[in-house]
Amino acid sequence: MANIPIVPADTDQAAITKAATSSRVAFTELQRFITEALQQLGLPESDAATTGRLMAEAELQGSDGHGVIRLVPYARRIRAGGLNLTPNITVVQERPGMALLDGDNGMGHLVMTRAAEMAIEKARVCGIGWVGTRMSNHAGPASLYARMPLAHNMIGLYFAVGNANHLPPWGGLDMLLSTNPIAVAVPALHESPVVLDMATTVAAYGKVKAKAQKGESMPEGWMMDRQGQPLLDPKRADEGFLMPIGGYKGYGLALIVGLLAGTLNGAAMGKAVIDFNKDQVSTTNTGQAIMAIDLAAWGDVNAFKARVDTLVQELRASERMPGVERIWLPGEQSQTRREANLRDGIALPLALLEQLAAYALDADITPLATF
Amino acid sequence: MANIPIVPADTDQAAITKAATSSRVAFTELQRFITEALQQLGLPESDAATTGRLMAEAELQGSDGHGVIRLVPYARRIRAGGLNLTPNITVVQERPGMALLDGDNGMGHLVMTRAAEMAIEKARVCGIGWVGTRMSNHAGPASLYARMPLAHNMIGLYFAVGNANHLPPWGGLDMLLSTNPIAVAVPALHESPVVLDMATTVAAYGKVKAKAQKGESMPEGWMMDRQGQPLLDPKRADEGFLMPIGGYKGYGLALIVGLLAGTLNGAAMGKAVIDFNKDQVSTTNTGQAIMAIDLAAWGDVNAFKARVDTLVQELRASERMPGVERIWLPGEQSQTRREANLRDGIALPLALLEQLAAYALDADITPLATF
Repeated sequence: MANIPIVPADTDQAAITKAATSSRVAFTELQRFITEALQQLGLPESDAATTGRLMAEAELQGSDGHGVIRLVPYARRIRAGGLNLTPNITVVQERPGMALLDGDNGMGHLVMTRAAEMAIEKARVCGIGWVGTRMSNHAGPASLYARMPLAHNMIGLYFAVGNANHLPPWGGLDMLLSTNPIAVAVPALHESPVVLDMATTVAAYGKVKAKAQKGESMPEGWMMDRQGQPLLDPKRADEGFLMPIGGYKGYGLALIVGLLAGTLNGAAMGKAVIDFNKDQVSTTNTGQAIMAIDLAAWGDVNAFKARVDTLVQELRASERMPGVERIWLPGEQSQTRREANLRDGIALPLALLEQLAAYALDADITPLATF
Repeated sequence: MANIPIVPADTDQAAITKAATSSRVAFTELQRFITEALQQLGLPESDAATTGRLMAEAELQGSDGHGVIRLVPYARRIRAGGLNLTPNITVVQERPGMALLDGDNGMGHLVMTRAAEMAIEKARVCGIGWVGTRMSNHAGPASLYARMPLAHNMIGLYFAVGNANHLPPWGGLDMLLSTNPIAVAVPALHESPVVLDMATTVAAYGKVKAKAQKGESMPEGWMMDRQGQPLLDPKRADEGFLMPIGGYKGYGLALIVGLLAGTLNGAAMGKAVIDFNKDQVSTTNTGQAIMAIDLAAWGDVNAFKARVDTLVQELRASERMPGVERIWLPGEQSQTRREANLRDGIALPLALLEQLAAYALDADITPLATF
């Protein structure tokens, strides 16, 4: 089965290449370390704990591009004054089924945790709840938030404007759109929840960088150059663009997600989006949206979950293409990884561990214990 | 700019090839003809009028695969007893922000019109409204319903389970998923609304058939064979599958849309989906979902619409790739087509006109007047 990487839909966020050498760290220790680091940077204790837990959970599920690797960039932004350590997160607009939050330029994890809690409360009353954010910041992997309603027997949907523009409109050359992700989590009965977490481009930048490191060329369809021709040499990535999924369809999806998560909320979209890796000071005015759907409003919760199980089992039992060992459901590999990482510890590449050791020394906090 | 068809995101529904020879028909005359035909088939007068208007509107916007070409298949199903002419559409579940409708196996257009009206009413109170359907039927192009909230200063979202399975799960061979469409419509101030209407496959079957008729081969990425290899000969289409957009991502999207529009509502999904072209008698138990988002709940409506205008203008003004004459926004070409068709009449291929003339003679209704 050539040309068809069997990768589950939820590994898209993985933006760093795992080095051949790594050490392991326990989930609770990682959570302790990030929390301590954030507290030392000036976040109030409970806010540091919330963010630390979510960043460690990102690592747990394998979203390593959105986990502890972000600690140093976050610290850089905080020290540059680009992030409000004690935000006053306020409800700007509210109706029984919706709210619009102003995050006051606080950590995205805190703004989105509040948004998810409100969406769940509203769904309990209205059947559905939608909470949008503006003046928020990068909040880690999309699936973290889409998963929050699961424990309340609810479906979760999450949309966000990415923190740097990578996509031109279809046929264009100006990078005016981000890879605006979509995540949806649907509970099952005995099966793992179905969790889709996807950017609207065919490949993530991390995969392009990995190809460059290995000296391999990219498959056609990952990137195109400024003439619209396939770009296959990952070392020339700066000369082209990531391809949106389905061509103009992915462009349309990235735009719609940006309208729902950004423009609707009065958050940055289009030209107003700053590249948060290059600019540490300007307010990102990140926009996000979360929706919760209360299964109880539709009828018997377990009957629904049993229908999801049946569907999952039908798909998994499909006859397979030659060379395909197993049909995966979106979110299934993450779930396996979460369980293994909780049991065996999370493998972190040595380069990252060295950076974190230097950081701990500099910030005078207890270093991360590995094994 | 090779390999990059500049096609707007809303032409996906076009499933028939326009013949070189065609005649024109006025929108009102087309509406009259379909309405009369449906009434002769036994639909109550107002139900026939509602369906006739929506089917004619599908033609108006260029969704010719979902317009009057469906009249004969609908008539076949009605005569075979596969559709309830006088359904009792009921509210099965309700909360302030949601409802679940049972369509009683009536025409999808009627069930979805009722669903859209309810979603709009609920959004006025709750800020958002979501209405799901089960025991519905094929309702025409997705954008028809996503557009309904626009006139109420609302964003519309529509999800549906397609009426035949075309997609296997990623890596699989059993066709267990349909091309489950997504449509979203966002109002602007002076610009056309942004309207995305897309299936979750790279190409529609109509495009494959068109390539076969022209004797051309398909680009890599449209279809794959049962070994997972690119399928380029459109005459061998039966030996393979349409490719989902972004590979496993499109598989994930088709699954999620099916969970939200089908499984959640107790409608058909997976193995339970019947092919409505091959089976005229079995109940399709089609599931759909519509959501309305009331802009007024988010703040000043015109301020939002002006932000959409600004974004649209930024994207349109992007520097272009060589050979690209214009950057299109999703829905913009449909809007142009709608205005031209309303003014100049709708061009219908002669083969279709001949079929409709024979139908009119057989059913003893006034034939369609063309010019």
